[in-house]
Amino acid sequence: MKVIVTGGAGFLGQLLIRALCERGRLSRTDGGQYEIQQIVSIDQAQAGPLFVDERVSYVVGDIANPTFLSHVLGRDTDSVFHLAAVVSGGAEADFDLGMRVNLDGTRALLEICRAQTARPRVVFASSVAVFGAPLPDVVSDDTAPRPQTSYGTQKLIGECLLNDYARKGFLDGRALRLPTIVVRPGKANAAASGFASAIIREPLAGCEVTIPVPRETAMWVSSPQSAVAAFIHAHELPEAAWGSYRALNLPGLTVTMAQALEALREVGGEAAAARVRFAPDDGIMRIVRTWPTRFETPRADAMGFPRDADLVGIVRAYARQYAPAVGR
Amino acid sequence: MKVIVTGGAGFLGQLLIRALCERGRLSRTDGGQYEIQQIVSIDQAQAGPLFVDERVSYVVGDIANPTFLSHVLGRDTDSVFHLAAVVSGGAEADFDLGMRVNLDGTRALLEICRAQTARPRVVFASSVAVFGAPLPDVVSDDTAPRPQTSYGTQKLIGECLLNDYARKGFLDGRALRLPTIVVRPGKANAAASGFASAIIREPLAGCEVTIPVPRETAMWVSSPQSAVAAFIHAHELPEAAWGSYRALNLPGLTVTMAQALEALREVGGEAAAARVRFAPDDGIMRIVRTWPTRFETPRADAMGFPRDADLVGIVRAYARQYAPAVGR
Repeated sequence: MKVIVTGGAGFLGQLLIRALCERGRLSRTDGGQYEIQQIVSIDQAQAGPLFVDERVSYVVGDIANPTFLSHVLGRDTDSVFHLAAVVSGGAEADFDLGMRVNLDGTRALLEICRAQTARPRVVFASSVAVFGAPLPDVVSDDTAPRPQTSYGTQKLIGECLLNDYARKGFLDGRALRLPTIVVRPGKANAAASGFASAIIREPLAGCEVTIPVPRETAMWVSSPQSAVAAFIHAHELPEAAWGSYRALNLPGLTVTMAQALEALREVGGEAAAARVRFAPDDGIMRIVRTWPTRFETPRADAMGFPRDADLVGIVRAYARQYAPAVGR
Repeated sequence: MKVIVTGGAGFLGQLLIRALCERGRLSRTDGGQYEIQQIVSIDQAQAGPLFVDERVSYVVGDIANPTFLSHVLGRDTDSVFHLAAVVSGGAEADFDLGMRVNLDGTRALLEICRAQTARPRVVFASSVAVFGAPLPDVVSDDTAPRPQTSYGTQKLIGECLLNDYARKGFLDGRALRLPTIVVRPGKANAAASGFASAIIREPLAGCEVTIPVPRETAMWVSSPQSAVAAFIHAHELPEAAWGSYRALNLPGLTVTMAQALEALREVGGEAAAARVRFAPDDGIMRIVRTWPTRFETPRADAMGFPRDADLVGIVRAYARQYAPAVGR
């Protein structure tokens, strides 16, 4: 079978492609497992070394260009993992770019999925940014999404489209509302949530970091490993497990920046913790303040989605891979 | 000031234009009242006699064509009432047409509003079709919209866009989730809810009617007069009254088809009631079954939106205007 991963050159995309290659197979609507013959990554650019496997090819192009997309997907695509997006800070800073990539790009992708010979499974990376203030203390599976950012708005619209395309039988869609992913390695991206990774990543790399929110700021987070496992689990579930609405709040952990600092201290020691400064930034806080921080996820739990045990475990896993000198 | 009414040649659009002309003025963001100098109706076609007033002009064209829209709105539009839509049955039967008019048309309109010199007020006719099964027994202001029709999906996306354009300060948007409007005069349109008007209209005109749902089917309804009053009230409220989310469930009445039949009997007599047959249709029921039937609307009530007293009053008002022979 042929699998498309949009945003495949990004951090999560790379982890997903590696996991798909290790797994080697995916299910189809008929319930059977099929060998993955081809994985095509679509991304706007690719910097640095990419995961290499004979089944994987990397295509660079504009996801909002239907002709380009149509050439890449052909008529023989079985599965799509749609991760490509202009992130929260970027979509807020450049409204038109966010609309083009996050809305037009998603719609173009769904429309080309509709033209496939097989009805493809489409797993869409949505976000808890679909929720915005005012919110209940704990967000439930029934909480109304009222985004207060352009990114959240565009993700919610993507969910709505995916759901209707699925209802019409054009494709078999599943949307996951991802928590903030920590710890992201490498350079900070334009996501307003970037500090939640930076507070761990930068000090473990020996760098000072300034966190643009107060210590008591809570985030709803998940490890990259859990997110990738969730993408694959979402793909593998039978269609009936999704019922009449295809968007799902994923399990996660509620973590304050004070708790993140403690986890950093536990894994990286006092020296690492001493590299963190707090200097709240109004622009970031205006976005972050609208995000939900606590969830109950009985639907995802019942569907068998994975949940991280605790933040220290997430930080240790990050340090093992990206900061091996730490704790030696 | 210059006012645009999309769908202005339709039934509600005509009532609204007449009401605006009678009123003669509207408020602006500065809180002042200004004289309406010009009302431009945009519609795909216009059949039959239209309301005439020296301030009103009728333009025929495609709302999804940005060049056309841009010519009509110019740079000097102060207020927009956006009523144009492919209705529920139509958007379900022709998915691409619904997407083009209801999504692309709305987006084009918002984008051109963003280019106006004054930040225009935009009142958007959304629908309770944004809600879909599974639903609580009573829909509240906090119930999550999960549309189960393409029409409801497209209306919800319109709300999301309107809300984000308002949040960004591109325009001052207000979206009203209209109940099913009864009684609509004239020919049936492609709305799946058409039977809720037909059960009154056809018998009062001396015609037999077949209702495609069972007697116990409940609908959430509003009179055309209340809907038009709501459009104007929504426009006139200060921006602060809307808070951070611009979509609102309107007040209405829960009415079963059995109650509609009784109201018909009371106003039109036994002879009228005898003209009603029930013959449930699976296609219609598949759509109607997903619609909410009971609401609590404390937010709209607190904001001062009008509510009809009862169905018999609505039917009497209809009969006075459109079936004057009845009851003489």
